Amino acid sequence: MFPPSVQKLIDLFSKFPTVGPRTAARFVFYLMKIPKEEIEELINSISNLKKTVKICSFCFNPFESEGELCKICADSSRDRALLCVVEKETDLFTIEKTKKYKGLYFILGGTVSTFKKADVEKLRTKELKERIKSYPEIKEVIIATNPTAEGEATALYLERLLKPFGKKNTRLGRGLPVGAELEYADEETLGSALEGRK
Amino acid sequence: MFPPSVQKLIDLFSKFPTVGPRTAARFVFYLMKIPKEEIEELINSISNLKKTVKICSFCFNPFESEGELCKICADSSRDRALLCVVEKETDLFTIEKTKKYKGLYFILGGTVSTFKKADVEKLRTKELKERIKSYPEIKEVIIATNPTAEGEATALYLERLLKPFGKKNTRLGRGLPVGAELEYADEETLGSALEGRK
Amino acid sequence: MFPPSVQKLIDLFSKFPTVGPRTAARFVFYLMKIPKEEIEELINSISNLKKTVKICSFCFNPFESEGELCKICADSSRDRALLCVVEKETDLFTIEKTKKYKGLYFILGGTVSTFKKADVEKLRTKELKERIKSYPEIKEVIIATNPTAEGEATALYLERLLKPFGKKNTRLGRGLPVGAELEYADEETLGSALEGRK
Amino acid sequence: MFPPSVQKLIDLFSKFPTVGPRTAARFVFYLMKIPKEEIEELINSISNLKKTVKICSFCFNPFESEGELCKICADSSRDRALLCVVEKETDLFTIEKTKKYKGLYFILGGTVSTFKKADVEKLRTKELKERIKSYPEIKEVIIATNPTAEGEATALYLERLLKPFGKKNTRLGRGLPVGAELEYADEETLGSALEGRK
Repeated sequence: MFPPSVQKLIDLFSKFPTVGPRTAARFVFYLMKIPKEEIEELINSISNLKKTVKICSFCFNPFESEGELCKICADSSRDRALLCVVEKETDLFTIEKTKKYKGLYFILGGTVSTFKKADVEKLRTKELKERIKSYPEIKEVIIATNPTAEGEATALYLERLLKPFGKKNTRLGRGLPVGAELEYADEETLGSALEGRK
Repeated sequence: MFPPSVQKLIDLFSKFPTVGPRTAARFVFYLMKIPKEEIEELINSISNLKKTVKICSFCFNPFESEGELCKICADSSRDRALLCVVEKETDLFTIEKTKKYKGLYFILGGTVSTFKKADVEKLRTKELKERIKSYPEIKEVIIATNPTAEGEATALYLERLLKPFGKKNTRLGRGLPVGAELEYADEETLGSALEGRK
Repeated sequence: MFPPSVQKLIDLFSKFPTVGPRTAARFVFYLMKIPKEEIEELINSISNLKKTVKICSFCFNPFESEGELCKICADSSRDRALLCVVEKETDLFTIEKTKKYKGLYFILGGTVSTFKKADVEKLRTKELKERIKSYPEIKEVIIATNPTAEGEATALYLERLLKPFGKKNTRLGRGLPVGAELEYADEETLGSALEGRK
Repeated sequence: MFPPSVQKLIDLFSKFPTVGPRTAARFVFYLMKIPKEEIEELINSISNLKKTVKICSFCFNPFESEGELCKICADSSRDRALLCVVEKETDLFTIEKTKKYKGLYFILGGTVSTFKKADVEKLRTKELKERIKSYPEIKEVIIATNPTAEGEATALYLERLLKPFGKKNTRLGRGLPVGAELEYADEETLGSALEGRK
């Protein structure tokens, strides 16, 4: 029912994460109303993304400064004995924002929900093994995947994968989050909270 | 904390309706992963929007066919005695989808939350008056704004605006929606449901 | 894990509408804390319910005044040509609160989700037919069941049941409730809103 | 609008935790429908609560067996070096259900949102101090209040209160609960998860 060009762009926006047809339609009608200059600005910005943003050869995080390494990996004051493996870019930024982690990172690029070859090939497991092999100063690998079903499966997979290297593998502490109530906590989280008391 | 080009595009996406910084960041990292061809396709589609999509001179709905009028306004089998005024494009499509309306439309372009001159100037009130003046075959104007506070204010404003024309002004029926329970209906809706019984 | 008397009362409270085991447990520990006098007051009030509250012989609504009829049915200023059939007591009170209905009521006592004999027997259909037969001044029967699947099935059942009496059967108006947005309205509700416009 | 006895019981039920007038009304109409025997059963069960349920003189948990102590406090296989202080009865049962805690308990009876004398007097702080003073075998006091604002204020209060006794004070581990996503974790919880990694 929408004109073809409108429907085409609605279909493209519908592929964006969390966007369905109704929201995609709102995006399109929003774009039809904004001035030509803002459309240009958006198009240039999207174009630019692929041109000026590089991927760090260490942690695979996007960055824009000179050289091969991002700001974090190039920072000599970081603790090179710690390597924090995360699922995606936004997780790295979320942990950096706490200002409580002083080590380096590695972006895995996803999770495995099964151990099928196809799933595993999407992750940077080869690069991760290379990284650990090439840098003996790494003493502890923090597997910081989400405590979801997929994150847990991925953590198990990584623990098996990294066993040969003999490094200390740790997981983020489980327990009660801010604002939680014991009454509504699941047994697993509460059990971890008891064991992790201090 | 994000590289400048990433942050720039996050800021632009954050201006999209319903999009906040976290969702905007997800959009940007999604775009960084998709193949170059899909980026091209998106950019071309956005560019195209402004080039191939025209605005119907009758109802101000976007369309792509030949001529000055959209498919609905050009359809001679439509009931020209009925004019349905809606707030925005998506409302027009929502009503058309019911297949229960056979008249013509007019897209107002927004709502008024106050009756200040600035607010009113955003709406196509001049064009609406022109339309009704130029087409005496119009017998009934359905004011199909949302039954929200802004939609109500807009409906009142339009009723006063259109009074001189002496046409029959109607509002969409108020009442109980599918799945509602009397127990949770507000008094106004329930009162309307009682009065509108049949 | 709870002491037997505590568990017993939790099980009884869990049968209350909308109450699950967690809420039932909260009720029991609340009762264990309040003074003995408040427990007495609650027990007496529950006891009293069955003793002092009567059921109106006309509309089957609970009441406490003298005689056989509740305040509404005994009120000679009510419009005896209108009979509003509702599913349950709270629906009657919800409609009365709007102050927009001046007729009489009839509480059906439930809904049918199927037309099986067992379901139908739970409703006061016999009493309803008796009521309409005995009072020829009734001109219109408003079937005010909820616009839910069960309410609709019940309305259809009642329309067939009451056909022989030749009275005017009406349903509460369907349409957009206060605060709704066209964009999110289902097609059936929006179609009704279009047809019911005024 | 409800008959007096109905309104009276609605008012009493409205005082129950989480119950508002609408739910209370549903409770009353539910009670009016159930058989006389079930009403008797409910009334007796409520009566019984105060008669047969005792409060353990150690942990202040309700119980029904012989003697002064509940089943947990009377169990000689429990680890008497551990004392877990909780806000309310349901918290004790929630922790017991994990089967991961082998020590004893103490039910504080509430929280403090301020340090005003009136607030503090509602809690069993005197009894708690007595308990710790009289049982030198207690080595660790786990302050298991909820990680909410009130629970935190209460924990701080208890830590100051118990300092003179020189026991080891611990808090339940904070961190990511099952199913959480790093992206949505607040900085405090994520910081704790990093520090509490293993």
